[in-house]
Amino acid sequence: MRIPEDVRKDIPLTSEVIYFDNTATSLTPKPVVEAMNEYYLKYRANVHRGVHRLSQMATHKYEESRKVVADFINAKFEEIVFTKNTSESLNLVALGLEHLFKKGDKIVTTPYEHHSDLLPWQRLAKKKGLRLEFIEGDNKGNLDLDNAEKKIKGAKLVAVQHVSNALGVIHEVEELGRMAKEEGAVFVVDAAQSAGHMEVDVRKLHADFLGFSGHKGPMGPTGIGVLYVNEEVFDMFEPPLIGGGTIEDVWLENYRLAEPPERFEAGTPNIGGAIGLATGIRYIKRIGIEKIERQEHKLVKRITEGLDELEVPWYGPRDMEKHAGVVSFNVPPLHPHDVAAVLDEHGIMVRSGHHCALPVMKKLGINGTVRASFHVYNSSEEVETFLGVMEELVKNLGG
Amino acid sequence: MRIPEDVRKDIPLTSEVIYFDNTATSLTPKPVVEAMNEYYLKYRANVHRGVHRLSQMATHKYEESRKVVADFINAKFEEIVFTKNTSESLNLVALGLEHLFKKGDKIVTTPYEHHSDLLPWQRLAKKKGLRLEFIEGDNKGNLDLDNAEKKIKGAKLVAVQHVSNALGVIHEVEELGRMAKEEGAVFVVDAAQSAGHMEVDVRKLHADFLGFSGHKGPMGPTGIGVLYVNEEVFDMFEPPLIGGGTIEDVWLENYRLAEPPERFEAGTPNIGGAIGLATGIRYIKRIGIEKIERQEHKLVKRITEGLDELEVPWYGPRDMEKHAGVVSFNVPPLHPHDVAAVLDEHGIMVRSGHHCALPVMKKLGINGTVRASFHVYNSSEEVETFLGVMEELVKNLGG
Repeated sequence: MRIPEDVRKDIPLTSEVIYFDNTATSLTPKPVVEAMNEYYLKYRANVHRGVHRLSQMATHKYEESRKVVADFINAKFEEIVFTKNTSESLNLVALGLEHLFKKGDKIVTTPYEHHSDLLPWQRLAKKKGLRLEFIEGDNKGNLDLDNAEKKIKGAKLVAVQHVSNALGVIHEVEELGRMAKEEGAVFVVDAAQSAGHMEVDVRKLHADFLGFSGHKGPMGPTGIGVLYVNEEVFDMFEPPLIGGGTIEDVWLENYRLAEPPERFEAGTPNIGGAIGLATGIRYIKRIGIEKIERQEHKLVKRITEGLDELEVPWYGPRDMEKHAGVVSFNVPPLHPHDVAAVLDEHGIMVRSGHHCALPVMKKLGINGTVRASFHVYNSSEEVETFLGVMEELVKNLGG
Repeated sequence: MRIPEDVRKDIPLTSEVIYFDNTATSLTPKPVVEAMNEYYLKYRANVHRGVHRLSQMATHKYEESRKVVADFINAKFEEIVFTKNTSESLNLVALGLEHLFKKGDKIVTTPYEHHSDLLPWQRLAKKKGLRLEFIEGDNKGNLDLDNAEKKIKGAKLVAVQHVSNALGVIHEVEELGRMAKEEGAVFVVDAAQSAGHMEVDVRKLHADFLGFSGHKGPMGPTGIGVLYVNEEVFDMFEPPLIGGGTIEDVWLENYRLAEPPERFEAGTPNIGGAIGLATGIRYIKRIGIEKIERQEHKLVKRITEGLDELEVPWYGPRDMEKHAGVVSFNVPPLHPHDVAAVLDEHGIMVRSGHHCALPVMKKLGINGTVRASFHVYNSSEEVETFLGVMEELVKNLGG
């Protein structure tokens, strides 16, 4: 496939707007929509418990989707649990491990986490009297790895994001995972902003749990997320959601749980969503994850250079090797929302606000940022258009 | 709309198979698929936190869907929480009320519950040392209301299904709700098998919490469910899933939750799913819920008469006023799965097995049933075809 032309052809919206809001959610290629339509119109049924042909077909497609997800992150079939989104995935981990912790135990995370990888640990810490500690880092999002080693010592659980949705920084997750495992700590990775944008390999990352959403990098639909559960922690993890589908036997007073992955999926899953997600992942594999990374890298390099020329302050690491396809910036004295509104007038869609990372904003002493974030279908021409509008904006401010 | 002809025209699969598996999931009308396609191809964006036009449009459509759901069950806008499915809805209630209970407190339910309205209470009871008690009833699913009154006395929480997915019985939920409220107990309704098939009015039912799935009666997609939370219990209910979107402010060590409904929805919701569900509900309202009920009633009456003529034992109440569009039966000595396989050969899709209600099967002393369940698009001709196949099957067994 030619990048980005061929992908743009599959996504009608790319010819209507400049979509730079990929960190929030990605656009959807037609093959993903078509795969879901096929399910809803041609083999619409529930999975697992049906003998009839439609249910057999739906079950086959649903479980095949699980296999596609497993291969995508180098996991085993039974290690893949379908959830609603990354937030659910991470909350389930915190709820399902609650029984492990004793007063005074230590949980370590970073100051750059998305609220969904922070609040569940805050609550767990409060409920069980745990110490919640933060690896130190600078205002660009760079973690102090010496401090990480110190903090992780004696930790019972370490939870980190792979990529910051607010600063675009790519953290040293592999190294942090190694440190966590050396301490015998449970290692949890929030891969919401990396999956579909760069390689995510649960073995390389030493992950015990890893969550991501289908609707972001993997170009799938909304309402489907993934929780990877390392088979070595199957027995440690008590499924917080139980009921239909999760059991082997049930009596009025008691139940016996089924084996994974069924154990971890209560109720009718998002069958159409899983099929859509698998189609998105196949689509991404056809493009090639390296090509996606390269395209985003090219755009980030150009946009940050352009912002520098305009003397517009942007956040995140200066080392482009550590900078994912997310660029946060501000145009003082304008409020981020006002900048976003101006860009919208020019057909450019960006996010503005705190990006569900208020502690990052507080650390930086700002109330929010404007955020341009990319996927493989974004083009150099779009970045030039954006920089042209920004130049006008800055000029008008100076005048 | 002419029933069922006009609905059948909107659902291509009705011309290919006889779909009698509506209790598991319903078929999807084309307008629902089209509404989701419109979202994915024309205004694909994340909700709430975006200034740009696509996000504004997505937010408008998502919140409008919440309003449609609220009107559908006579709730207020902010009382509607979107979840993944009924199982999640009910589990969230059990997890979010955990803090209310003290050792020895009593939870009351029925022996007919789906696993998803049983296991969460079993676990809660075990964890907190509670008494879990069951309202007595007969083998047809009829509850003993005198016994209900006795059992509910002193209860802290009462959880019941509106309709049994295994026996088709419609329970006296309004009356049970009244009893629960008189005792000051929290009243939880599992409406998975009633919503979209008959009137569900949270005020009439005295519900504090009520859950249902989009993909069943309401003819929506998979992956979207609803949890109704009565505004009077907002403060009592601690959201088990927290993070992105649920907050007003966040610091490294603490957070302050937002008002409902945001408080209860962590992470990117199933935007496409909510839009699809609202479209399904609008579709059902266009048909008219009374017409749906009447059509299913007609089919159940005919099918049970037909089974009686063939001397095929069926389960559930004899009083047709108490029997929803779900008919469970057996053809001894055949295993339910074998009966389902024979029916499938004739293009008839039914469920077979324990229907996630193992205690019901144990109470009846059987290992499972064959289950034919209906929606408004099922026709009298389909029932006659089914009875013809059944007649052949029974004749062959006798020969």
